[in-house]
Amino acid sequence: MKKTVQFSSAPVTFYFDVAFAKLRDVLDPASAIILTDENIFSKHKKYLKEFQVIVMPAGEANKTQKTVDHIILQLIEAGADRNTTLIGLGGGVVTDITGYVAGIYMRGISFGFVPTTILAMVDAAIGGKNGIDVGVYKNIAGLIRQPSFIWYDYNLLSTLPNEEWINGFAEVIKHACIKDRKMFVALQQQKLSFWKRDRVSLAKLIRQNVDIKVKVVQQDEFEKADRKLLNFGHTFGHAIENLYGIPHGHSISIGMGIACKISEKLAGFKETESILQLLKQYGLPPSFAFDGGATMKVMQADKKKQGQAIHFILLEKIGKALIKPVSFADLSEFTA
Amino acid sequence: MKKTVQFSSAPVTFYFDVAFAKLRDVLDPASAIILTDENIFSKHKKYLKEFQVIVMPAGEANKTQKTVDHIILQLIEAGADRNTTLIGLGGGVVTDITGYVAGIYMRGISFGFVPTTILAMVDAAIGGKNGIDVGVYKNIAGLIRQPSFIWYDYNLLSTLPNEEWINGFAEVIKHACIKDRKMFVALQQQKLSFWKRDRVSLAKLIRQNVDIKVKVVQQDEFEKADRKLLNFGHTFGHAIENLYGIPHGHSISIGMGIACKISEKLAGFKETESILQLLKQYGLPPSFAFDGGATMKVMQADKKKQGQAIHFILLEKIGKALIKPVSFADLSEFTA
Repeated sequence: MKKTVQFSSAPVTFYFDVAFAKLRDVLDPASAIILTDENIFSKHKKYLKEFQVIVMPAGEANKTQKTVDHIILQLIEAGADRNTTLIGLGGGVVTDITGYVAGIYMRGISFGFVPTTILAMVDAAIGGKNGIDVGVYKNIAGLIRQPSFIWYDYNLLSTLPNEEWINGFAEVIKHACIKDRKMFVALQQQKLSFWKRDRVSLAKLIRQNVDIKVKVVQQDEFEKADRKLLNFGHTFGHAIENLYGIPHGHSISIGMGIACKISEKLAGFKETESILQLLKQYGLPPSFAFDGGATMKVMQADKKKQGQAIHFILLEKIGKALIKPVSFADLSEFTA
Repeated sequence: MKKTVQFSSAPVTFYFDVAFAKLRDVLDPASAIILTDENIFSKHKKYLKEFQVIVMPAGEANKTQKTVDHIILQLIEAGADRNTTLIGLGGGVVTDITGYVAGIYMRGISFGFVPTTILAMVDAAIGGKNGIDVGVYKNIAGLIRQPSFIWYDYNLLSTLPNEEWINGFAEVIKHACIKDRKMFVALQQQKLSFWKRDRVSLAKLIRQNVDIKVKVVQQDEFEKADRKLLNFGHTFGHAIENLYGIPHGHSISIGMGIACKISEKLAGFKETESILQLLKQYGLPPSFAFDGGATMKVMQADKKKQGQAIHFILLEKIGKALIKPVSFADLSEFTA
């Protein structure tokens, strides 16, 4: 199923539940180059025969300028020009790097995504944000620029490790917390094993999450207001992720736990226990003993910072979030 | 004098003939950071007291990712956030790096330019193109994104070395060749020493060049058509510049010489001698013994390449340029 969504900067075409092999019907392999990581390449090599492929090392630790340099040199080598489309086949690291490289190569070429993880399908591939990390500073360099298409082939999930399912569901739970109480309840009624088994329900859940994210981005592509809500759990989460190298889903799970506590104090939130319970139910850690001082230092460089405060995402209730400037002094209470 | 120009992506405010010291009247130094190079910093330190300043090493050889990394870390250190304006004070290398870093830092912050060279005033600072070099590939990574302002203080030219005046006039002559026969004639009637001496005539000449470039960019900001004309002399020029480390103005002078010869053959151009003569009159080399094979190889990665041809800028007559796809096979004739 094909659906084109209009964002303020550009349209994006979504292909849902279409085999990856059909990609060549909409895009000439001769004018496309696929960027993927070593894991995906070894698992899905057979689909890639017709394409030129650039393979990067896997993992968040490689979302760096060094990888970007490497890819740019390979694009030159491969003769990529302004008519080339770069296709990111992989999880959030691959889609982030793909969007970034395509945004700067020759001052911008077309790109598309074929997400292979839950996290990329429901979150990372959507909305045009891309970026790389510099040291412990996550996504400190990046762009907002839309892919021309996003391609959903749920069969690609068949090789996804359990750990990555858990990671992805952290963003699903985040969407439920900030925007969809009904989805929260539906998640409470199941375990991860259900979604892994029931393809139809999973496809529906992914579509619901795509719709939530698309709607937010349509209203505020350049994150002047409501798009910030999607950062629920991400302020502490990103800092902890980069300090400790914990997986993204685990980190934002911990971040959501902290954000719940701050929400209790500053927004009268009363449902912390339900959220902590749901996180645990999906194999996610709701808390973690981290170094408060070091974490605060990383947050001082957070992109949501303005002067001595940070735009923090709080919950009023499950399904309803708000943005509030919170001073670093106030935050430090929660890192003691 | 203040003038706001509307480009398709954003407006840009030009300040003409205003002392740099007045910048603090339109921009709070507390929310701005100046990026400049070692040369400019040592010459104009006294104007910079109120600002935080990041100093980069001078010269095209430093228009690289290494410099970008260094600047990003210094921005984090300085506490730059999404409300910070980055101001590039310098020549084309500084303005290119400023626009690029501001474009990617935290996914984009505001920036402005205070050009200190003729080349930056008439060309590099205008139009939003920025970028860095990767190896011998010039501007292979970059963006098109407009500064919020461009500030012209002609007093900053008082310390400009003669070599840089010559460099800048290469772009002035380029503008005359492609768009303004009258300006070409005016240039023929003077020598560089006249423009260096006569501040009023120089200010007028710079304004004429700004107007030419602004008009072209307004019509075609993202270089789908006519903006390509500004690349006259730059295809061979860039390749030679990066292979031999010759100054930009000299390189495009050589490139214009070659483009004239190609124009004779493919566009019936008959005024090569006048152009070569004018280049010499302004201290620019109209030819150079370069390695044809190596130059062709670099051009194969030119951003104007499409498949096995390149969009080449030719002259029909002085003041009138055209774009023609020329095959690499045809170009190789002129590199023998």
